[in-house]
Amino acid sequence: MISFDRQEFYPLKNLFLISDIQYLLKDNLSNFKIENNFKIKDISSPTNIVENSIIFIDKNTDKIDFNKHNICLVTNDSNYFNKNQNILLVDNLSHAYNVIINNMFYHDDIPNYPDDFSYQNGSYISIFSKIHESVDIGKNCVIARGVEIGKHSIIKNNVVIKSSILGENVIISDNSSIGTTGFGFDFNNRGASNLNPQVGIVYIDNNVHLGASCTIDRGKIDMTYIGKNSMIDNLVHIAHNVHLSDNACIAAQTGISGSVIIGKNSTIGGQSGFAGHIKIGDNVVIAAKSGVTKNIKDNSIVAGFPAIDIKKWKKMVIRQKKSGYK
Amino acid sequence: MISFDRQEFYPLKNLFLISDIQYLLKDNLSNFKIENNFKIKDISSPTNIVENSIIFIDKNTDKIDFNKHNICLVTNDSNYFNKNQNILLVDNLSHAYNVIINNMFYHDDIPNYPDDFSYQNGSYISIFSKIHESVDIGKNCVIARGVEIGKHSIIKNNVVIKSSILGENVIISDNSSIGTTGFGFDFNNRGASNLNPQVGIVYIDNNVHLGASCTIDRGKIDMTYIGKNSMIDNLVHIAHNVHLSDNACIAAQTGISGSVIIGKNSTIGGQSGFAGHIKIGDNVVIAAKSGVTKNIKDNSIVAGFPAIDIKKWKKMVIRQKKSGYK
Amino acid sequence: MISFDRQEFYPLKNLFLISDIQYLLKDNLSNFKIENNFKIKDISSPTNIVENSIIFIDKNTDKIDFNKHNICLVTNDSNYFNKNQNILLVDNLSHAYNVIINNMFYHDDIPNYPDDFSYQNGSYISIFSKIHESVDIGKNCVIARGVEIGKHSIIKNNVVIKSSILGENVIISDNSSIGTTGFGFDFNNRGASNLNPQVGIVYIDNNVHLGASCTIDRGKIDMTYIGKNSMIDNLVHIAHNVHLSDNACIAAQTGISGSVIIGKNSTIGGQSGFAGHIKIGDNVVIAAKSGVTKNIKDNSIVAGFPAIDIKKWKKMVIRQKKSGYK
Repeated sequence: MISFDRQEFYPLKNLFLISDIQYLLKDNLSNFKIENNFKIKDISSPTNIVENSIIFIDKNTDKIDFNKHNICLVTNDSNYFNKNQNILLVDNLSHAYNVIINNMFYHDDIPNYPDDFSYQNGSYISIFSKIHESVDIGKNCVIARGVEIGKHSIIKNNVVIKSSILGENVIISDNSSIGTTGFGFDFNNRGASNLNPQVGIVYIDNNVHLGASCTIDRGKIDMTYIGKNSMIDNLVHIAHNVHLSDNACIAAQTGISGSVIIGKNSTIGGQSGFAGHIKIGDNVVIAAKSGVTKNIKDNSIVAGFPAIDIKKWKKMVIRQKKSGYK
Repeated sequence: MISFDRQEFYPLKNLFLISDIQYLLKDNLSNFKIENNFKIKDISSPTNIVENSIIFIDKNTDKIDFNKHNICLVTNDSNYFNKNQNILLVDNLSHAYNVIINNMFYHDDIPNYPDDFSYQNGSYISIFSKIHESVDIGKNCVIARGVEIGKHSIIKNNVVIKSSILGENVIISDNSSIGTTGFGFDFNNRGASNLNPQVGIVYIDNNVHLGASCTIDRGKIDMTYIGKNSMIDNLVHIAHNVHLSDNACIAAQTGISGSVIIGKNSTIGGQSGFAGHIKIGDNVVIAAKSGVTKNIKDNSIVAGFPAIDIKKWKKMVIRQKKSGYK
Repeated sequence: MISFDRQEFYPLKNLFLISDIQYLLKDNLSNFKIENNFKIKDISSPTNIVENSIIFIDKNTDKIDFNKHNICLVTNDSNYFNKNQNILLVDNLSHAYNVIINNMFYHDDIPNYPDDFSYQNGSYISIFSKIHESVDIGKNCVIARGVEIGKHSIIKNNVVIKSSILGENVIISDNSSIGTTGFGFDFNNRGASNLNPQVGIVYIDNNVHLGASCTIDRGKIDMTYIGKNSMIDNLVHIAHNVHLSDNACIAAQTGISGSVIIGKNSTIGGQSGFAGHIKIGDNVVIAAKSGVTKNIKDNSIVAGFPAIDIKKWKKMVIRQKKSGYK
């Protein structure tokens, strides 16, 4: 997995000890076990655990590797009590996540996110970004804190790029937004101030072409990844934590929900949609206007909503035509 | 109903007497009855009638409360002749609306809309707007005449806000457009110069989160309303006169047509669409990619196009799979 | 057909002789016949051939008029060898197109596209554009090289217009992008640097209203055309080489794929989609959320996906409701 330094994008607001976390959680805390009181410098996702970090674990999370030092585990599942040295048991995990992460990192969904820009040739470029000198940047763009852009990339006009790393020879067309906030919150507690902080990034690999007025949300904790040589048309939405493998081709107005994994060499028709958290194999073709609700095997061609094998879909359509309107 | 002062957004171009209106309508006028010749200061919709205003009434309009003073009624329905003291009968109501309102108010679909901006920290802010000092505004935004924004709201980058009132703790993400022109015109007389003037506003209540590259059209005469705590994802379109009640959750690329009313606590999947002028109850769940064509009762869960009860939809899908592709 | 001067938008990088082209193609060239060695000043599409130009012809192309002087034909079909005096036979036509056109014209998908802007009243206006003095332009717009805009048009805020000609009384709403890059490339050779250069334009005729956050891709070689009096709602995507005839009405979030031809007086519901290269007749009504996959005759009303006659579609829906969920 490609790694990144979170603090390049989200400066640490407070460096917490577990005892500080314990204090922050207050009434939400129902039990705890603290064996050593180390400093927490990062947040981990269940699939990418780093040392000296805090990790939030839900009842449904599986396969966690606790083989790291100094992990502060926050959970709403009392079964975890034996599995970790440093553990905080809470009633409301989403609320705990919000309180802790909002106090730990600066991000752009709470006021006063710190950044500083130079105005260069019509666009605002963060002094904390790293843009290769060969990059072409149009007018009225915003390139925010921590953003890296590789050689010979072209950023057109009115583009907003935040919390993202872009490779070489990438093209981003007009009016697109990269690194926007993922749509993550507790459904029982809605509202802008209850948003789960999104402190991951977008990683766009070499030679990707992104159309106009697209939106790519950053990962919640890890990254939203766009593989090499991918071709993405206009008005496409890619949600947080999506992993799009190399050589994807995505036609206009398609939407990919959170945490979807798409294999290599995909070809996806326009106005298609994907349910969250599904896995699409390699070399898959998805016809236009499909609604993909389940995992799809390698080398499949699917169509319709719910998407099924395209031959079956065509037969179904013919049958519906014949018998459907008598 | 929340009220607003139209002239904060649409300055009066001419203060008309009914006799002036009569002159403007010329050949379009087939009959009239003028009992007192008052000054007209506003326009009313059929559901929100104010004094000293003009109101346009169609054959199909019902339940009008004429219990106000100094109403100038313009209609294409001769049956209204007995119902009002001051009435102008026209052949083409849409044309009458256009001529009168284009001459009465400045708006941004005819040239020379008057506004004046200061350039503050990378964005154009109208000197006629009221932005609380705690509001964070990103780069390359335009905040136009009359706009109000409440405490602690965050407006990200490249956002355009016109003819709108935003509450407290609202977040508007990058490249979104609020207060855009509603899609209203006479289908038999198309073209930019035949657009029905849209002189209402957008009201976004407290704690709403709006994603990137969304468009929210302003009301035609009254308002498009977004209820408290609503969470709206990227690339969502909300048309003119929509009323979205509190705690809505709307996933990406959904489109809500004009005058749709949606009850509290709605959860709406991505790429859903709604026919115009329908009413959705409270606590309704609408699955992704639904096409909602009719009113939906409280507490329903619907799916498909046309959207039906989700259990029925699932059975139908299974049956189609079984018999559909023999 | 309306003509335009390509070099107003795409300055000539190199003025090639056929012998230069022959050199550029190198290993890709399998045979050639050069009878006179003229200068090539333009590119032609198969349906609009101009003199002293280069033209790329595929096996599937039909009906070509060779009745012009000094045509350099590049093809992957050896059957063309007898049909032209100056012909280059290549193995990979897409690659030949890319190499030649990228070396012949400057365009905005390779670095260092030459343009020069003045900053006027909050927007960047190319010194190589022709904007009528009566045009209203909002803030944070970019009007690029070669763009023409006719009398009394209104360009709202944060709009990007490139490689386009706009007529009179046109309205372009906020955050829209006109003249963006068409989605054209060899499916077997993906990636931003393998994009087929798009060196056509967008032509928007008089009195068109375009909504917010729309994207209109420019033609590949000729033009994407939007007919007079057309009304286009928000978040609509119109791909390269589309021809939309007069008086179109297109509701929000519709997507029209490449090279679709739509007749006069069309009315197209929201979230509709069109397969590429189809032809829609005059006076056609397409219901919301339709997926149009085939040619549609004049005066048809269609619905569904695949779109069929709306009466048949309604019967089918009723039948599915009855038998579908037993």
